[in-house]
Amino acid sequence: MKEKAVIVLSGGLDSTTCMGIAKQKGYDLYPITFFYNQRHNREVEQAKKVAEYYGVEHHHKIVNVSFLGDIGGSALTDQAMDVPTTSIAEEIPSTYVPARNLIFLSLATAYAEVIGAQAIYTGVTAVDYSGYPDCRPEFIQSMTDTINLATKMGVTGEDRLRIKTPLIHLSKAEIIRIGLDLQVPYELTTSCYLGEEEACGVCDSCRLRLKGFAENGAQDPIRYQSC
Amino acid sequence: MKEKAVIVLSGGLDSTTCMGIAKQKGYDLYPITFFYNQRHNREVEQAKKVAEYYGVEHHHKIVNVSFLGDIGGSALTDQAMDVPTTSIAEEIPSTYVPARNLIFLSLATAYAEVIGAQAIYTGVTAVDYSGYPDCRPEFIQSMTDTINLATKMGVTGEDRLRIKTPLIHLSKAEIIRIGLDLQVPYELTTSCYLGEEEACGVCDSCRLRLKGFAENGAQDPIRYQSC
Repeated sequence: MKEKAVIVLSGGLDSTTCMGIAKQKGYDLYPITFFYNQRHNREVEQAKKVAEYYGVEHHHKIVNVSFLGDIGGSALTDQAMDVPTTSIAEEIPSTYVPARNLIFLSLATAYAEVIGAQAIYTGVTAVDYSGYPDCRPEFIQSMTDTINLATKMGVTGEDRLRIKTPLIHLSKAEIIRIGLDLQVPYELTTSCYLGEEEACGVCDSCRLRLKGFAENGAQDPIRYQSC
Repeated sequence: MKEKAVIVLSGGLDSTTCMGIAKQKGYDLYPITFFYNQRHNREVEQAKKVAEYYGVEHHHKIVNVSFLGDIGGSALTDQAMDVPTTSIAEEIPSTYVPARNLIFLSLATAYAEVIGAQAIYTGVTAVDYSGYPDCRPEFIQSMTDTINLATKMGVTGEDRLRIKTPLIHLSKAEIIRIGLDLQVPYELTTSCYLGEEEACGVCDSCRLRLKGFAENGAQDPIRYQSC
């Protein structure tokens, strides 16, 4: 029987690349997508298309985490705050949701336990977004210990649940190179912070993505607003 | 300025005792209550009354985590499963929500970061409910490391966020003894798995509670169904 992997799938470029990597490793894919009162519910629609592309829409768990906006403190969940479009942040970005990866990995752990998965894939990267504390390798290592202590697996001594972060030390260009090799459907992904039908091309996320494709001498297949 | 503490407050006996303990320690109290598609939304109403009793209703965060039922796998969230009423479970109870404390402490961490709290109180106990893996001291220790790595505090080297588990090694009778000394409003708490106006008196949770009061030679102030 194939091993199972939960994939934290946002519908963005990084997490969709994780789908391709986990599939290549031979896992049965169980995507989990979180949506909240954000500017881009579009991400959910794109995540659904990605799940369909990989033929696992029946395993796709879509979880409403709108209460994160209620707990507060981030530009992505608080409509009153501005999304930064000027530069790639050097400090902790204002789009930071407190402990977001901690929360998402905790929920992914619950799903992993229910279905009996051996791995959780997350597309965190410590390179491009180094401002997020819960994207750091030392956090992932500690979280792995914690989730194994939190679950039945940790008690019964069954297979240890692993958190896989294949992108954590990669630049955007390196991620895209791997994804292009694996025929990851980048045309289905969305990265823009503004979440419009056409990407803005100027927010931090768009700029990183465009730069990554350019460094591979490749064309980004999604549509951008004409400037 | 007083230090702040987030209290994971279910409206039950244990978490309400934590309110009394944290208050005695001098913390400014910030209760957080999670509710899901469970049999006892009554808990939320009782939690509100407890927050009012301590005069901190304006700090009380009530979070809808109904999606836990969607992730599945527990008698408390899955209406199709029976609540066990026959005996105190010796194995992992069927009321187990996968990784529930992991998830609740992750959300409490987000709230703690938003308000700048120094502590999170949780009423977990490893004695009466030893079947839950995420109530064990080794889980709490690992979780403390993880949440500090997950948050700005872990990056900036500010005060470390601590998880306080004052009840973890105590029996129900010992918890109640402390609570009675601190004048914890047990008349406002609810413990019964069935969540009716009057407690059933026969489910695991009622039996533990009744035994705890009896061992203190005290009367439980809540109402029970007449047998």
